[in-house]
Order: sequence, then C-alpha cells, then structure tokens
Amino acid sequence: MSNLALGARRMALGATRGRQAVLTGRRFQAPFTVQAAAAVDAAPSTLAAPATPVTVLDEHTAPERLRGMSTLIFDCDGVLWRGSDIIHNAPEALQEFRRQGKRLLFVTNNSSKSRAGYVSKFSSLGLDVAAEEIVSSSYCAAAYLTSQGFGPGGSRARGKVLLLGWSGVEQELEHAGIPYVGGRGLQVPAMDDLDAMKALEVDPDVGAVVVGWDPNFSYSRLVYASIHLRELPGCLLVATNMDCADHIGGGRMMPGTGGLVKAVETASGVSAVNVAKGGEWLLPYLCRTYGLEPARTAIVGDRMDTDIHLGRQGGLFTCLPLTGVTTLKRLEALPASEHPDVVVRSVAQLAGLPA
Amino acid sequence: MSNLALGARRMALGATRGRQAVLTGRRFQAPFTVQAAAAVDAAPSTLAAPATPVTVLDEHTAPERLRGMSTLIFDCDGVLWRGSDIIHNAPEALQEFRRQGKRLLFVTNNSSKSRAGYVSKFSSLGLDVAAEEIVSSSYCAAAYLTSQGFGPGGSRARGKVLLLGWSGVEQELEHAGIPYVGGRGLQVPAMDDLDAMKALEVDPDVGAVVVGWDPNFSYSRLVYASIHLRELPGCLLVATNMDCADHIGGGRMMPGTGGLVKAVETASGVSAVNVAKGGEWLLPYLCRTYGLEPARTAIVGDRMDTDIHLGRQGGLFTCLPLTGVTTLKRLEALPASEHPDVVVRSVAQLAGLPA
Repeated sequence: MSNLALGARRMALGATRGRQAVLTGRRFQAPFTVQAAAAVDAAPSTLAAPATPVTVLDEHTAPERLRGMSTLIFDCDGVLWRGSDIIHNAPEALQEFRRQGKRLLFVTNNSSKSRAGYVSKFSSLGLDVAAEEIVSSSYCAAAYLTSQGFGPGGSRARGKVLLLGWSGVEQELEHAGIPYVGGRGLQVPAMDDLDAMKALEVDPDVGAVVVGWDPNFSYSRLVYASIHLRELPGCLLVATNMDCADHIGGGRMMPGTGGLVKAVETASGVSAVNVAKGGEWLLPYLCRTYGLEPARTAIVGDRMDTDIHLGRQGGLFTCLPLTGVTTLKRLEALPASEHPDVVVRSVAQLAGLPA
Repeated sequence: MSNLALGARRMALGATRGRQAVLTGRRFQAPFTVQAAAAVDAAPSTLAAPATPVTVLDEHTAPERLRGMSTLIFDCDGVLWRGSDIIHNAPEALQEFRRQGKRLLFVTNNSSKSRAGYVSKFSSLGLDVAAEEIVSSSYCAAAYLTSQGFGPGGSRARGKVLLLGWSGVEQELEHAGIPYVGGRGLQVPAMDDLDAMKALEVDPDVGAVVVGWDPNFSYSRLVYASIHLRELPGCLLVATNMDCADHIGGGRMMPGTGGLVKAVETASGVSAVNVAKGGEWLLPYLCRTYGLEPARTAIVGDRMDTDIHLGRQGGLFTCLPLTGVTTLKRLEALPASEHPDVVVRSVAQLAGLPA
C-alpha cells in the first residue's frame, strides 16, 4: 500500500506552524466516479477458520441461475465500470438481459451525481440507460424526504433541508421541489471561539440535515449542522450513504461519506437514517416503488457490506462479480452461509458472454 | 433548547449556491474553556426503572468520607469553574486539602491548552496550581507518544507526528521534543477531485496522527490524515479525547473532539487510542507516574462517562459535585450500583465549606 511519491503537489507543512490553514478557493472539478471499498476494510470475520471453497461460475454455467429472475439490480462502480473504464462486454450483457425481458435497475451509493448526471456517465461509456432506471443515493435522499412529507403538497411543517453535500443532491432536491440551504455554496463563518458559536443563528424552517459526500466539509459546517439538529426538535439527520472509503486507484483510498456522517452524529447526538445500500430504508422503498418480487429479483454487486447485504436482507438472489473490491480470498475467509448465491469473474458471464 | 436568534451574525445561504465555501482566514482567538457534556447525551440506562434515591451529602457529612485519601484528582470544568466563573469556595477548598497534606492532581479532557496554558487559567481564577499538578489531554497526548518511543532518545524509527489540533497540543509536543507537522498551520490543497487526492504525498517519517480539538478540521485534512494512516504501516492514531460535545452556555453545545476522531477512524479504518478520561491508557499512567494507590485516591468530577468512569475503572473513590453536567434526576435514573460514592452540591462541601 505504500505510495510515497505520487505526484508533483507537495504539502507545505512544518514551516508554516502558527499560521492558520487557508483552503484555496478554486472551484471543484467535475464529480468523479470511485470504486467503493468494504466497510472498515472488511477483515475476514473468522481469522482462524479454514478457507471455505467458492465455486466461480463461468459464462456457460452462470446464466441458468438467473433464468427465473424478472428484475436485476446492478451496482455500478466495480460491476459495470471501474473509474472511467467499462468492464469488458458489460454493454452487451445489459442488452442481452433486456432482450430476455428482464427489468434493470442501477443502484449506487455514490451521491456526487444526480440521476441525470448518471445518464450522461452511462452514455459516455456506451451504456443506454434511462433516468428512471437509476437509483443513486442522491436520488434516494430526495425520495426519502418526500416519503417523510417534504416537498410540494407534503405534510412537513418545517420543510427546508440543510445540505452538507454536492451537486448530485442539490439537483435531486431541486427536482423534487424540496427547498434547501447549503450545498456547495454553504458559507459558514469560522467557528473559532465561543462568541462565534453563540452568535450562529438557527434557521427555524429546517426540518432535516442531509449529509452527502462533501469536499467542503469543515468544523464550521459541523457546528452549523449540529446546532440545527440539537436545537430544532424532530429535525432529521439523513445520510446519503455510510461508505467508509473508496478506492481511487494506485492503492490509494479517499474518505467516503461515512466518516462525515459519524462526525455529525457524534456532535449532535442524533442517529442518521442511511437511505442507501447498507441501510434499512432502501429495499422496502424499491419493492414498493417498482413492485419488485424479492424472490424474482437478483442483485449484482461487488461489495459484501452494501450490495450483498441489501440482497440478503430482502431475500434477493445475490451475484458477486470479481471485478470490484471483493477478492476470492476474502470470500473464502467467510463461512459458506455468507457467500453470495453466485460468484462470477464479471457481469458479462451472467449474460453468457466471455469475461 | 430552542435558540433561534442568538446574535448578529447571519448565515449567507441559499443565494450563494454554486459558489464554493471559502472559510475566512482570520486568526483564531484565544483558546477557551468549555464544560463537557455527557457522551451521546447520556440517556438514563434504564428508562422504565423507578428512581433510585441519591443521598446528597453536605459540608458537615462529606469531609469524613475523604479522610483516608492521600490523593485527590479533580476535573476542572464543572467542578472548579464554569466557563470564566469560579465555583464558590473552590480556592478555599483546595487550600484546605493542601493543609490536610493531600496531593492534588487536575485532570482535564480539554486539549485546547497546554499545562502552561492551564497554569495561567488557574491563576486568573485565583487558584494556585503548579504545572506538574496538571494533566491536560494535550499533555497526555505527548506523554503517551513518549511512552511509545517518540521524542529524544526514543526507539521510534518514524518519530514525526501529524497533528490535527490546536496550540495546546503543539506546545506539549514541543515541550516533549517530539517533531510534528500540521497543527494550526497545516496547509492542505483542496481535495476536490481524484487527481488532487492522487497527487498528495505521504511524509514517510510520520509515525502517528494526533487528533485534538481542531477548528480548522476539513475534508482535506481528513484525506491527508487518512492516507498517512492507510499507507504507513504501524502509523498510530491518537485521540486527545473522545468527548462528543461541550456546553458553551445559553443551552448551546459545540462539537467536541470525538466526532473529528470518528471521522478519521472511519476514513482510515484505524482505531484511535484515547489518552484522556474515558480511555484505557490514562489511569495506569497516572498510577505509574505519580505512584498513586488506587484505594487511597479519590476522583472529583461532574461527568459519569469520563470522570466517574475513570474512577470506577481503577477502583478509586468517586465524588460527584452537582455543579456540572450531571443532574440529580439523571443520577436517580441509574441503578444504585452505578452511583458515585459521594454526591455533593459542590466541591467546597468536600472540604467542609459551604456551597
């Protein structure tokens, strides 16, 4: 994992002691795609246990296992693409599933993009997917809030959202007609002393704090979010996901949204509702909204703690392609009862195509 | 708890969407004193249980209980002072204990000040205390690192500290001769895209990341800390404390260090060593360093989860004055087996003085 000289940027440290950090104000670049890592590095649950063999099916043996399925739910990063690289034969596999009359859904914990943003991403990789087939965690946040009475015609008295997050959630809130403050443009004075913190005003119309991936996250934002949660009775805390960290290539990982949510939970004393894979809300919502029959629905994902967890939680058929974060070795360290129903080298093989 | 119009500062929100938040660069003001709140708002452990009566001793009945004690450990905020207000008769109580020949120690989880900084604080409130009698969590962080081979003559190959924290810890590291990068002056480029994160260089000499109260905490700092913890094998994560939030008056609370540590733990996958009250390290250290006999040592503190926890953990005699965060009602909601050995209206009464 050592990665000591990755590039030209250097940290100006030590010599600057005594000066306050000033984060440069340059605009953030386009949202990016990352490949999610297992929670807390998902160590094998039983270190002493012997390896339990895993059968890896191929394009000749895998398709039969999906024959009875009417709906397929796909994770994206690590299943259909890795970063900006499409998985070999993934577009052809989706075409084949459509030809077979299966309904497809694409469910991702990444909150940096909206549904519309994902349509562009899919399209750029040669994947023809409609917005309605995409369930991003940014969309989930808005859908959850709507289910709680936020938005036009909703029953919520305090209908405004305080957002610590990025453009994906901003766009989904706008699309759902839910007013918000914050997001990329949240300006919070430096919370540097008691007077500053005492002077901060609470917006009484805020009914929920939403935390997504937020590269502008700061102590000042943490103060602002936590005083709303502490001082407005019933104010909800909504997490777009709880992913700990994400692979960005070269053996490096970046902090996910999970740590930001933990900070807000700890400071406010309020527990977050996780609207993404790994939480309790998503699967019943999908079943209700899309009329899913769990027994005829399969999930295809590369993470045990979100994708396969979601599937096992709801009695879905679970498929793990080895193109993402979960290795065969890690699977074999788990008891057989925790293995996915099908393991394949890639999503292509599920459709009868070579990996 | 509603606190909707606390002052003149207003948030510039909503209208600024699309622009990036820029934290102003003005210098932080002097470190401040806060009164710590119980962890996760310390709900009564058995809601349905009937109240268990608590005997509150007074200045006539309390002193006898401390007769056999040779050492008294005092928490500060909520025991000796509240904010900038000294507790009535607290200086006289300390004088009386000294007259009785008891050794006094002052142990606080607040990391914003060094020992030297606390001497000034004590002095300003009319309390005559020596630096050696003060065990602040900033000092604990340096002492813990020294015990782990950091500093002059230490065995640590990677002896540098990466600090997310404030002047108190900076001063204690300097005093202990432990080199560090970061602190108030940590300059981290905006971690706004994959390229920025990939380009960040790890300092290979870093052997520990220390997280204290850090009003400059940001996503960029989180990235920087987590890549060191992930990419340098054996790199330690040290928390000055894990306090969730602190009372700052007017019913308002500010985020403590706990949430910042949780964010780093979650992003890095590394568990922190908590060197303050609430952790496992402190009491054995105090016993070893000061030659404490637990059976003849009392702790006087206002928090159940740190002060009384530390006392019960080590078999000390526990005293809770009702001048801090713990109310009589909250105590009565706990089973009698969890009550402190002595409850008094204030520290003064322990010395036979009126509250």
